[in-house]
Amino acid sequence: MSVVRFMVTVSIDGYMAGPDQSLEEPLGVGGEDLHRWLTELEVWRRAAGLGGGITNASSRVVEEAQADVGAYVMGRNMFGGGRGPWGDDPPWRGWWGDDPPYRVPVFVLTHHPRESLPMEGGTTFHFVTAGVDRAIDQAREVARDRDVVIAGGADVIRQCLRAGHVDRFELNLAPVILGAGERPLADVGDLRLEQIRAIEAPRVTHVSYRVLR
Amino acid sequence: MSVVRFMVTVSIDGYMAGPDQSLEEPLGVGGEDLHRWLTELEVWRRAAGLGGGITNASSRVVEEAQADVGAYVMGRNMFGGGRGPWGDDPPWRGWWGDDPPYRVPVFVLTHHPRESLPMEGGTTFHFVTAGVDRAIDQAREVARDRDVVIAGGADVIRQCLRAGHVDRFELNLAPVILGAGERPLADVGDLRLEQIRAIEAPRVTHVSYRVLR
Repeated sequence: MSVVRFMVTVSIDGYMAGPDQSLEEPLGVGGEDLHRWLTELEVWRRAAGLGGGITNASSRVVEEAQADVGAYVMGRNMFGGGRGPWGDDPPWRGWWGDDPPYRVPVFVLTHHPRESLPMEGGTTFHFVTAGVDRAIDQAREVARDRDVVIAGGADVIRQCLRAGHVDRFELNLAPVILGAGERPLADVGDLRLEQIRAIEAPRVTHVSYRVLR
Repeated sequence: MSVVRFMVTVSIDGYMAGPDQSLEEPLGVGGEDLHRWLTELEVWRRAAGLGGGITNASSRVVEEAQADVGAYVMGRNMFGGGRGPWGDDPPWRGWWGDDPPYRVPVFVLTHHPRESLPMEGGTTFHFVTAGVDRAIDQAREVARDRDVVIAGGADVIRQCLRAGHVDRFELNLAPVILGAGERPLADVGDLRLEQIRAIEAPRVTHVSYRVLR
């Protein structure tokens, strides 16, 4: 059955990005340390168009997260291109080149309308100005019996949790303390959770949860 | 070799107690939910003088946390008896009755001097007014080759992390979101960590970390 889910890597003090995000440090100060477990994996490197890498207990977790996805929802900040109206000289087309690793429709939340943007490989970016509920609805519709994945960032995750859209999520708990930054689980309201399973892996612990209704 | 360590159960948003702590709800609103995995364990119930209980993957984690402890350090708030000078009609003797479950010296941080308080079963409460560094020193001295455990609360854990006193710690990650309360890992400065191991158990995930120097 189709579910709405997300996976996010957080520090043990709950941040998915450090403070002072910038073009040079898009994950904020110290934020790169969160992903050391991930960027060495063959499964991640392959999806990113890179060679090499290793296989360990995290590989299956990443593979499962990438499987059966029918659509993504992401925030404008994650899609990139700055704030405010889209430029047109040329307009921003995302961080991922001509063939983004999504390969299904991606619904980008924005305050600024824009035509849908088909890319190579099956990815099409759709720009949704009617808010997160509408973006989830549209994503569900095209995903049909596959899952909708909330790609991020923190603000979209928080909005979806608060609105009750999330069925399941996975925390990748990295052995890092960031001290400040973006907390995806802050101010999400009153949620009842059930732990589904936990997996120990090198430099990370994966724990998945179900949101109870 | 003797180490300084602590174990703490936190919500997935990082709180070890909920908001609005009171005599009726000493763990704050929702805070009891953090410990559902623990209070059903035979090993915990036995230490608390209660019967019954079950054994599961958490049992060994709790047993290891209780083993080889030579001394404890705790904050005044955890010892209890309100704030300000100690009354004397009669003076507060802790939450745990005549035979507290510690059975070794316990160093209580306070601003208000008081004579040491020997209890039954080997526990003696010592009251330290010279700050956390001195309390850790005294605890190390009496613990000799056994470990010093920081019993809590959040403020003492934060002080010890910030001062570099902690060698190892264990997070028990409960499937709970509290939204507000006491965060033991907030404002602890710049720490480098190594994940030691993770254990999946019913309604909790145990993850232990080493602080790198």
